[in-house]
Amino acid sequence: MIAIHPLHGIGEVMPGDDLVSLLKGALASADLLPLAPGDVLVVTQKIVSKAEGRFVDLAGVEPRAEAARLAAITRKPPNFVEQVLAEASAVVRAAPNVLITRHRLGHVMANSGIDRSNIGEGDGDRVLLLPVDPDASAARIGDGLGCAVVISDSFGRPWRYGVTGVAIGASGLLSLVDRRGERDRDGRMLEVTQVALADSIACAAGLATGEGAESVPAVLVRGLVLPEGASPATALVRPLEEDLFR
Amino acid sequence: MIAIHPLHGIGEVMPGDDLVSLLKGALASADLLPLAPGDVLVVTQKIVSKAEGRFVDLAGVEPRAEAARLAAITRKPPNFVEQVLAEASAVVRAAPNVLITRHRLGHVMANSGIDRSNIGEGDGDRVLLLPVDPDASAARIGDGLGCAVVISDSFGRPWRYGVTGVAIGASGLLSLVDRRGERDRDGRMLEVTQVALADSIACAAGLATGEGAESVPAVLVRGLVLPEGASPATALVRPLEEDLFR
Repeated sequence: MIAIHPLHGIGEVMPGDDLVSLLKGALASADLLPLAPGDVLVVTQKIVSKAEGRFVDLAGVEPRAEAARLAAITRKPPNFVEQVLAEASAVVRAAPNVLITRHRLGHVMANSGIDRSNIGEGDGDRVLLLPVDPDASAARIGDGLGCAVVISDSFGRPWRYGVTGVAIGASGLLSLVDRRGERDRDGRMLEVTQVALADSIACAAGLATGEGAESVPAVLVRGLVLPEGASPATALVRPLEEDLFR
Repeated sequence: MIAIHPLHGIGEVMPGDDLVSLLKGALASADLLPLAPGDVLVVTQKIVSKAEGRFVDLAGVEPRAEAARLAAITRKPPNFVEQVLAEASAVVRAAPNVLITRHRLGHVMANSGIDRSNIGEGDGDRVLLLPVDPDASAARIGDGLGCAVVISDSFGRPWRYGVTGVAIGASGLLSLVDRRGERDRDGRMLEVTQVALADSIACAAGLATGEGAESVPAVLVRGLVLPEGASPATALVRPLEEDLFR
């Protein structure tokens, strides 16, 4: 049995907050300490970014020509688009209400992952960027708590409605499990040879974190049998040269 | 707490098998009866297709010109490609070792979901198609057991390595949860307004079903707070006219 435990009571996270001690407190309150082998702590991107102070005030962002052009196509504010471009290595698609970019870390996502919701009161023009290096953030939290960590975000999909959870950072587990060479019950080579384990864990955690007013910023997943090894969430990124949908 | 219970002991499923009674037996063996409100039974596509006898012997499939052309590009057997096309409404991408199609039900996926692994012994040239109508299959199982049902498959993603679970059939739950108009903790309109609930449940179940020799064909997810209402898995399909990546 795999259990997904929401961690309540973390409260509003502020720049400079020590996430390790906040999370340790929440784990203790939920009676989940000591941690067990196979435990994976899933932390939403939003509180990691907040603790790292990744806020930008759009009032101070000057849109350049490319941002103005894309703002007209996407109907998004030009200074917001400028900030999206500053976090992106490429624009994948621009259409009304849609701006899909390749984030500088490689993740293809809406608006370079920049977020306007749930970032605190009275911040009309503040936005929140992804952590500078989510894999490193995951490693810091994992080192502090002694467990595997996934930093989760919600991505849309090109051919399906609705978002699902994905891993933008990971530590202490194999983000991508490569099963090439393994066989099925009948001895046939497996057709599905790579499993996005960290994404699947983030997706499962999303069932407990939710969105909006009742959102929960972290989840413990207990009971997984993790394969040996570790790889960061960037191992999940299909590189540009293999992109059939540029 | 959300619990993901793998259902072991179902054994090899054969055409004509009664999945409702097989699943009821597995739920009883796992001590999960009676079912509780919010329970979602996730059944892998493979055993639904097997029970429905969705096998095709490729030896009897004659490739036409388009299949031969795509077989040369994808390096896949021409009769296999012919069968993929027979299940597809469109070819989305063809490249070496890649054939992404829009399945006749709308799902964009590799090889129209046609599967060669784990389909039984001595079936070198037999393949397994998706169920004729997975939403209807889910409804039949759900009606028989009195719970919500998701029929899961594993899809690749265009910009990320590895597969994750998705829902190709659903009954008794809202596959797509629309939160447009809801507000976050600070009263701001939610940016993420649609959540792919059935896909997220399939993805979570994938942590317990696995692939290959130790694969488990069904999972019970217990402890979800399901929103009111129901919509089929086809509600998750972004229609062709909104596809920015044709």
